[in-house]
Amino acid sequence: MSGRAVGYLRTMNLPQRIQERGSEFLLFALTPPRVTVSSQRAEEIANLTRQRLASLHLDGLVLYDIDDESDRNSAERPFPFLPTIDPATFWDQYLKDQTSSVVIYRAVGKYEESDIQAWLRAQDVDQVLTVFVGASSRNKQATTSLVRSQDLWAQVRPELPLGGVAIPERHTRRGEEHLRLIAKQEAGCSFFVTQVVYDVNAAKNLVSDYRYECDARGLTPVPIVFTFSVCGSLKTLEFLSWLGVDVPRWIQNDLRHSDDTLAASYEHSVRAARELIEYCRRLGIPFGINVESVSIRLAEIEASVRLAETLSHVLRR
Amino acid sequence: MSGRAVGYLRTMNLPQRIQERGSEFLLFALTPPRVTVSSQRAEEIANLTRQRLASLHLDGLVLYDIDDESDRNSAERPFPFLPTIDPATFWDQYLKDQTSSVVIYRAVGKYEESDIQAWLRAQDVDQVLTVFVGASSRNKQATTSLVRSQDLWAQVRPELPLGGVAIPERHTRRGEEHLRLIAKQEAGCSFFVTQVVYDVNAAKNLVSDYRYECDARGLTPVPIVFTFSVCGSLKTLEFLSWLGVDVPRWIQNDLRHSDDTLAASYEHSVRAARELIEYCRRLGIPFGINVESVSIRLAEIEASVRLAETLSHVLRR
Repeated sequence: MSGRAVGYLRTMNLPQRIQERGSEFLLFALTPPRVTVSSQRAEEIANLTRQRLASLHLDGLVLYDIDDESDRNSAERPFPFLPTIDPATFWDQYLKDQTSSVVIYRAVGKYEESDIQAWLRAQDVDQVLTVFVGASSRNKQATTSLVRSQDLWAQVRPELPLGGVAIPERHTRRGEEHLRLIAKQEAGCSFFVTQVVYDVNAAKNLVSDYRYECDARGLTPVPIVFTFSVCGSLKTLEFLSWLGVDVPRWIQNDLRHSDDTLAASYEHSVRAARELIEYCRRLGIPFGINVESVSIRLAEIEASVRLAETLSHVLRR
Repeated sequence: MSGRAVGYLRTMNLPQRIQERGSEFLLFALTPPRVTVSSQRAEEIANLTRQRLASLHLDGLVLYDIDDESDRNSAERPFPFLPTIDPATFWDQYLKDQTSSVVIYRAVGKYEESDIQAWLRAQDVDQVLTVFVGASSRNKQATTSLVRSQDLWAQVRPELPLGGVAIPERHTRRGEEHLRLIAKQEAGCSFFVTQVVYDVNAAKNLVSDYRYECDARGLTPVPIVFTFSVCGSLKTLEFLSWLGVDVPRWIQNDLRHSDDTLAASYEHSVRAARELIEYCRRLGIPFGINVESVSIRLAEIEASVRLAETLSHVLRR
């Protein structure tokens, strides 16, 4: 698979940049195709993805590991849950090339300890980074817990860069997400990735508290990757809320009353990303930008690519 | 008193502009001197105030009516409560001139009904506007309630422009401040004034919900005046919190870790005001800017005047 793909990602070593606490990198996040697609269709999707992203010169891809989060809340899921190809498989079989980097998510609750160990051992530390995600609610029965997975990583493959999830919304509710980040960092995390950011103020509050807590403890902050997306319809907006993303009322109102929801959300995301980029630079926090395509609608995918393109010019790369 | 003062405020009719739902006006808010000062000292303060504000060509002054708000919360008041000259008295005896406008606050809970009626009858509707403020907590025994005061106004002096207080923080907590604004508007309020804004997002949420609720009811929005201030010390920051102003964590952190709290807060206020001005213009909401001097320290007063000066150039006046 990989021959045709060489060059669609930057020939650079994201794992090394992360370990050196680099900044201003650009990622693009995808959800693999559904498990029900044929291998031919999966290959077509991979090729299309490469073509779409070719001009962006990304520093890496992010591949999500989708879990059935129906326990997340009691409200009906706006889009049905459809199992997707394992991101590690999608990468290995369809997207991988010799030169580029990928951040592979692991919804660790889905896997046996032995599977996690075997997978960690098999990864190329020059190309692959991973983010462990715990259960989406306390009530969920996890096969392997987040804490146990971190232990396995430390035993088996501590040289593989491990990332954690950062949730500004949780900081808004409880005011201690910065302490969770620091605990994860002390457990070995060398970077963080947020969920989709619509509430810039919440993200700034988290970054600020994290920065000053690091100072107080004599720790060096690790890179935080902020995720942005476009939202092309009120149904996607509803889905963001279901996922736990705080969309400020005024932005919700703007999107609801706009003649072109997609264009309005694109403008909001550009503005939010610029504000966070400027803020992180001022604060001296290493950071990256991740653009996520949350929908499978073509217009939304294309707008996501445009968003990444626009932000690639804002970043000092 | 007034002869020397002619011209330090704009020769314009703020009451009329408010009734016509004008926009982009600039106010400056003061607390009158303590009741213990001599009349000579009060006159000096009034003259100093005129000199300081002369170059701003304000559209009007705002004079606060300070109440002992020790019931506001159980935490100790960071600055002691010191009774101040009645704002109506300070205006009439020291600051008034023939050509300018003033917004006189009335903490209605302090007054007998007959006093409120008499005061309303005595005002010149071409110069004076008023804002009624209710009790600072539900537990406080008010001599006259806010609702009763609005009734008195409607009976006695409905042609005197009546304003209400808008509290974005309350919208954050309960999500219905826009409905309170509309109820006040239906009771006769023709403008609103916010408390000091540090959380721009909260202010935008309120304005947005207010705007779309007006649309839904076929009402025309009335001007909202946003108040900004500088904060020159951590004690003033503490006082803002005590007053119920939400200062986002990242701004608190910035102020706490800055070498120059006053300069940092000035920058934050300029930025916040610009963002709100731009937002209100986009949304088509009539608005004004009010710069409040919250401290009696000279450096903070001077920075407030600079803030008003800077914002006067941002406004399209």
